[in-house]
Amino acid sequence: MKAVGVIVEYNPFHNGHFHHLNETRQKTDADCLIAVMSGNFLQRGEPAIVSKWARAKMALAAGVDVVIELPYAFAVQAAEQFAHGAVQLLAAIGCQELCFGSESGEISAFLSAAKTWLEQKETFDSLIRTGLARGQSFPKAAAEAWQKFGAAPLDLSKPNNVLGFAYVKAIWQNKLAMMPRTIPRLAAGYHDESFSHPSIASATSLRKTLRQTGRLESIAAYVPPATLEQLRQYRETYGRFHDWEVYFPLLKYRLLTATEADLRRIAGVEEGIEHRLKQHIAHAETFAAFIAAVKTKRYTWTRLQRLCAHVLTNFTKEEQAKAANPTYIRLLGMSEAGRRYLKQVKKSAALPLVARASKLNGDSLYEQEKRAAAVYAAAFPEPLYSAALKEEYATAPIYVSGIERK
Amino acid sequence: MKAVGVIVEYNPFHNGHFHHLNETRQKTDADCLIAVMSGNFLQRGEPAIVSKWARAKMALAAGVDVVIELPYAFAVQAAEQFAHGAVQLLAAIGCQELCFGSESGEISAFLSAAKTWLEQKETFDSLIRTGLARGQSFPKAAAEAWQKFGAAPLDLSKPNNVLGFAYVKAIWQNKLAMMPRTIPRLAAGYHDESFSHPSIASATSLRKTLRQTGRLESIAAYVPPATLEQLRQYRETYGRFHDWEVYFPLLKYRLLTATEADLRRIAGVEEGIEHRLKQHIAHAETFAAFIAAVKTKRYTWTRLQRLCAHVLTNFTKEEQAKAANPTYIRLLGMSEAGRRYLKQVKKSAALPLVARASKLNGDSLYEQEKRAAAVYAAAFPEPLYSAALKEEYATAPIYVSGIERK
Repeated sequence: MKAVGVIVEYNPFHNGHFHHLNETRQKTDADCLIAVMSGNFLQRGEPAIVSKWARAKMALAAGVDVVIELPYAFAVQAAEQFAHGAVQLLAAIGCQELCFGSESGEISAFLSAAKTWLEQKETFDSLIRTGLARGQSFPKAAAEAWQKFGAAPLDLSKPNNVLGFAYVKAIWQNKLAMMPRTIPRLAAGYHDESFSHPSIASATSLRKTLRQTGRLESIAAYVPPATLEQLRQYRETYGRFHDWEVYFPLLKYRLLTATEADLRRIAGVEEGIEHRLKQHIAHAETFAAFIAAVKTKRYTWTRLQRLCAHVLTNFTKEEQAKAANPTYIRLLGMSEAGRRYLKQVKKSAALPLVARASKLNGDSLYEQEKRAAAVYAAAFPEPLYSAALKEEYATAPIYVSGIERK
Repeated sequence: MKAVGVIVEYNPFHNGHFHHLNETRQKTDADCLIAVMSGNFLQRGEPAIVSKWARAKMALAAGVDVVIELPYAFAVQAAEQFAHGAVQLLAAIGCQELCFGSESGEISAFLSAAKTWLEQKETFDSLIRTGLARGQSFPKAAAEAWQKFGAAPLDLSKPNNVLGFAYVKAIWQNKLAMMPRTIPRLAAGYHDESFSHPSIASATSLRKTLRQTGRLESIAAYVPPATLEQLRQYRETYGRFHDWEVYFPLLKYRLLTATEADLRRIAGVEEGIEHRLKQHIAHAETFAAFIAAVKTKRYTWTRLQRLCAHVLTNFTKEEQAKAANPTYIRLLGMSEAGRRYLKQVKKSAALPLVARASKLNGDSLYEQEKRAAAVYAAAFPEPLYSAALKEEYATAPIYVSGIERK
């Protein structure tokens, strides 16, 4: 069986994702589509709109065969570390190809950019360090570094190009036997907040619309029916969706009671940002107002969101430094084909395949995952808080047979 | 002017407290009654039912002339450390006498018990250490130690006798020029949860009744009108009273995300209790159920409550060890007579008299107080959370002229 990997967040799953899956299956002739998906917190430092289980169900309904979890220590990170964890997991579970969506759509552009970068790594590193020292953000410093080598072969101001570029580099740096491919993304930009296409919209715009209208029908044109159904069930069970504002009281409590020395131990707290956090938190009444007050040229919104997620989950610099590579493959869900594939690779997989999270107790990456789950569940009043916590440890991987698929 | 001190929590102020104040004034011929009062968290580790400001108003209305704050590092402690902080503050502000309520009512019994204890300190310490090592609670070990010296001259199973005994010892150990006196408490026991007297009830029973009925009238017979009025205003402004259950989601969040190493840094976390905390928190749906599950012979309810308060406020062993003595006298409120008295002692007081908390920024005892205030305010949704926080730093001492008194 030929396995092909995709790297996803599905926050929530929408028609653009569906297009990407169908194109991937068609172009690669995959027998088994494997998605490595972020858990409770996402790459840009946001809590996922619904749980990993609900999002895994959306993925399975749309044709993904195996969903595995990207551990927190890789999921809530800038592109390079995110890519490093994700491609290793896909390679470890035996994917022959990785197929990512990008604005560019041309794999040759990624290969050429990655080649230049890796050949000139020291020059790039030194140019970027200089840029950072001058107070630039990382993307800005990287863009200026490229100018020294003529124009970049790839538009690295586009978020999906940036991720794809990181995937290709990570595959090469880790010497993985997995071929990268890319598919052009349809219409909507990653961060677009308004709808401009009849059936394709970005996840960002879908979440924003849902927040504003509170009505699932307002996004019905842009997502498969299974997404709508999962969102409906989730809200019925838990009473709400998740966003940063839900967690703001916890963040405020924690920032007010942690000492500056405590904060300096947290991953991402550098260059005295702890003073700014402390300075602005007492007066801030919303998360958005807080980040707007703390933001600087160097500390972008995304970087601050990630840092705040780390404050909430108590994810330290020491833990980040130790999180070199994934240590397990955690299954969140599978189809019939996925189950057959897993049976086949069970013994050959480069990392242990784990169905029951309770087997991971003591693994430091999983201990971090549990803390992220504890934060995520704190959005609910009791008894839902305890119930959602239990779901994290006790849920068996979701199995969806062919008949159940929509 | 003759100043006399009392050590109080007023949680809330009731007729028994009123009796104690009147007796104190009459017996000591005081010109100025000074109360040192716990702030947001109390000796037994509970959050105060209403803010320090509301409780200071109750005290002033009942005839107290000066209310000063007992810092968190002394307020949320077993009897000895609590007494150590409180008597030093009263002596520093110039009190010639301390007058405490007790079950015994005989100062000679306290003097005799304290004398025996201090003369035999090493023997007591060693007997108590042995008892603790055998798994006894501190009160139990202390009671057994007394048996070696014949019966204690004082019934040390009574909570107010225990506190009074600690006050007398602390006065002597600190060589303070302040004379201890005691007044017998009326009717109700400290912890009594039901009403058995027509106008006197314990603060514990009043809080319990309020929680159960939600009606202020249900406690009207047992408190002065000013207490009722302050409680009414507080609930109108903030929408609620405070108890541990309000803070349980924060405690749960913190216990789930702190590592065991983090917890071992917290004051009061000893002998592996962090394992029990971690073990029981995920399943507990209420604070009461959690403490009931964690409780042992050695870790009493009160000890666990204090420890949980320290977890919430991030009060560490290191901070506790450094909190040797009070470093300032913080004014919460005063009467006309109080103001005159303060003018008189302003320069002679042994510690700086501080009206504006902002002057205390950087003082480590006050930094702890701010954290306790941050936890306390987390009971409210925004914008009340921010407003209550601001009240902590920005409120000027309350001034009540004679005419306003009821």
